[in-house]
Amino acid sequence: MKRYEQLAEEISTQIQQGILRTGDRLPSVRQASSGHGVSPSTVFSAYYLLESQGYIEARPRSGYYVTRAKKERHAEPPLSQPSSDLLDVDVSKLVFEVLGHIRQRETAPLGSAFPSPELFPLERLSRSVGRALRRLDPWQTVEDLAPGSEGLRRQLSLRYLAAGGSVDVGEIIVTNGAMEALNLSLEVLTQPGDLVAVESPTFYGALQALERLNLRAVEVATHPRTGVDIASLKQVLDKHPVKACWFMPHFQNPLGSLMPEAQKQDMVKLLAERGIPLIEDGVYDELYFGARKPWPAKAYDKHGLVLHCSSFSKCLAPGYRIGWVAAGRYAAALSRRKLMTSLGAPVPSQEGLLDFLQHGGYDLHLRRLRETLAQAQARALRLVAKHFPAGTKVTKPEGGYFLWLEMPAQVDALALHRLALSHKISLAPGHLFSADHRHANSVRLNYGHPAGRTLDEAMKTVGQLACRLADG
Amino acid sequence: MKRYEQLAEEISTQIQQGILRTGDRLPSVRQASSGHGVSPSTVFSAYYLLESQGYIEARPRSGYYVTRAKKERHAEPPLSQPSSDLLDVDVSKLVFEVLGHIRQRETAPLGSAFPSPELFPLERLSRSVGRALRRLDPWQTVEDLAPGSEGLRRQLSLRYLAAGGSVDVGEIIVTNGAMEALNLSLEVLTQPGDLVAVESPTFYGALQALERLNLRAVEVATHPRTGVDIASLKQVLDKHPVKACWFMPHFQNPLGSLMPEAQKQDMVKLLAERGIPLIEDGVYDELYFGARKPWPAKAYDKHGLVLHCSSFSKCLAPGYRIGWVAAGRYAAALSRRKLMTSLGAPVPSQEGLLDFLQHGGYDLHLRRLRETLAQAQARALRLVAKHFPAGTKVTKPEGGYFLWLEMPAQVDALALHRLALSHKISLAPGHLFSADHRHANSVRLNYGHPAGRTLDEAMKTVGQLACRLADG
Repeated sequence: MKRYEQLAEEISTQIQQGILRTGDRLPSVRQASSGHGVSPSTVFSAYYLLESQGYIEARPRSGYYVTRAKKERHAEPPLSQPSSDLLDVDVSKLVFEVLGHIRQRETAPLGSAFPSPELFPLERLSRSVGRALRRLDPWQTVEDLAPGSEGLRRQLSLRYLAAGGSVDVGEIIVTNGAMEALNLSLEVLTQPGDLVAVESPTFYGALQALERLNLRAVEVATHPRTGVDIASLKQVLDKHPVKACWFMPHFQNPLGSLMPEAQKQDMVKLLAERGIPLIEDGVYDELYFGARKPWPAKAYDKHGLVLHCSSFSKCLAPGYRIGWVAAGRYAAALSRRKLMTSLGAPVPSQEGLLDFLQHGGYDLHLRRLRETLAQAQARALRLVAKHFPAGTKVTKPEGGYFLWLEMPAQVDALALHRLALSHKISLAPGHLFSADHRHANSVRLNYGHPAGRTLDEAMKTVGQLACRLADG
Repeated sequence: MKRYEQLAEEISTQIQQGILRTGDRLPSVRQASSGHGVSPSTVFSAYYLLESQGYIEARPRSGYYVTRAKKERHAEPPLSQPSSDLLDVDVSKLVFEVLGHIRQRETAPLGSAFPSPELFPLERLSRSVGRALRRLDPWQTVEDLAPGSEGLRRQLSLRYLAAGGSVDVGEIIVTNGAMEALNLSLEVLTQPGDLVAVESPTFYGALQALERLNLRAVEVATHPRTGVDIASLKQVLDKHPVKACWFMPHFQNPLGSLMPEAQKQDMVKLLAERGIPLIEDGVYDELYFGARKPWPAKAYDKHGLVLHCSSFSKCLAPGYRIGWVAAGRYAAALSRRKLMTSLGAPVPSQEGLLDFLQHGGYDLHLRRLRETLAQAQARALRLVAKHFPAGTKVTKPEGGYFLWLEMPAQVDALALHRLALSHKISLAPGHLFSADHRHANSVRLNYGHPAGRTLDEAMKTVGQLACRLADG
């Protein structure tokens, strides 16, 4: 158990024993830090954890308080039970039908895939772009095309190093967002008709990519807290000629699961034994609520078989369309594919981000963003507990900005989605997250738009609608 | 015959008759304009034409002069004679091998696909980006994703209107450069194994796109001055189940051919009769040397079958990676494909270009760029006449920045390419421009890097090397 987890447990015990009572103010971070002889960041982590567990709540400019009543919390959803069939993928029509509604401003975006753009330092970013373009050598407009700006790739390599991995600049290719990185990886690794293993439930973008390339999917049982189940993965690999895996070890979309380090290590080892490449979708890597950044599966890869894909779109620069892939042994093939598909990534975005990484205070921004999201999650969990039908199960992710709810069986998420839309609220129904449209009573909720009263009101409305459906 | 062509002919007759003599200074544009009772732009066009024909030359800050001696010009290459076979495409290895050398700064880029970045108003563009980002509404970072910024698409629609076509904002999708627009078009129109008609010779990027998607090519005879031969196209369509065409009616890469308006009209009609869609690659549309912008084939399309693809990369904003497709009846499918492939185009680039189109003096920049390129072409043609082997045939395109040379049969362009590389000069050998590696004695030369002495010295060196190969 980590130090911050110990501290959180000490405090939660005090609350359960009535030593700390409802409405009590917790010691400030500074006080607790010197009182317990730990670093302020350990105290922060402990408080986040307690908050996400519902024991305490933050009040702006005031501090942390013991919550009014420790509610009976909703249980965690169980390990998924995917179909063992190989699946042709045909989700796009539904995805577009549902997502079409999300981009209207007046809709409360509980179904959105993005956090609120207001959470990002767009002004400072634009100053970085301005600075970078003023000193731009005209020839960089040609030279920054694939594999991408040398300077930016160097910064990315340094950030891998800081996070515990070692990734050579030469294997990093800058792309038009992670979406392109993921798609190019799939194109390099597969031929039409090939079989790709995905999580269950899985990100609909992965399903769409498979559909686009005429690939088939096989789903692997996935635990809502710990991610890809290794025993299930092994079974699938024993049984089927899997050509590649596409997994999201950190804050999986939609579950929010975080694979423990040892489990990631086992996964990489298992895949290496069989020579199967892993496309690691790491777009939420920076959005951890714990004390330190989890290592990507890539960090355990000794054979160049892991292609780690990520971007700045969810943590710093939405709309800049800068992602990348650290492509291991596939780097040369991927770089060529990139040249053939879209030539290069945009230079103003690349050079602007490079300047920001060097001078903009990226890590400070990330700390604040994580804090905001962790608080929003605690609030969202309280709202779920308060408003959703009895028997609803919910995840408590250690990062990201999604909750995954499994509601009573009679609540159809598509029906809920349609009802919610009539109240100008969007949802992401569970149907989107599986090639065979399972998870019909589940829903993904985005808590990454915490400003104002929108989140609270929207969650309350959706919860009431779900109760109505649950009551038949 | 256009007024400027009449004027050019009057002057060339005077030169041929000895009325105007070697070294004589022509009247200034203003003088000629009032003297002939025509607009200054008509005079400019006439002078460009005469310059490209080798009758006159521009001397910086001085004016136009009758050239020293009207050389015996090289002849025009003949109509291409492509294989009638259906071709599997496998050019990428060679393309990457050859292009790998072009991006080194010390190499004289006669083989480059880009004009010099120094020809572009990058400073003013960066001010536009700065202005646009300062006033950016954070929500635009989400809303400007596919199909792209509403404002930018409106400006594009207005520019179509000004050029004689009518294109609805709703059918325009902003992409990561024209390359992505072209690739997405192909993806929407075809399935693996399908047959696509291309020009002969054709842009290697088109061949790579076919290769990537496992499509087969059939090549259509193409005239170096007037482009796609309609009779040959008809034959090909009669004989083969062509699923789509990918043509470049304006300043075709590599030939530089410009399809006359009536011929474009015939082509669109022929394809419409058979319901075959046309992917129109219009990336050089703005780089015409004539008096007015040629109409895209799209302007003659009554059935939504023409997908006009273009970008700002070759005429304004290299490295910004903003292109688009006006996709006709395929707009909805293409927009979805874009969402699935790379989500959206970069917002800083989109909004910066929108500001520039509104305030930056785009048309003024284009006029100067055309003038620079037309003068560079005249210079390049003189260098070809002076230094290349007897019997060399060369195009005289009415726009763009490529010459296409057909050298004597014994000159192998790949051998020439390797020799040139040892002199730090790149070339684009003819082999790159055909699925069956024809055009072995042809070469594409880029005259879009006219600054300094590089162009002259590089052309002279390559010409001498070619003479050596021609002499055995």
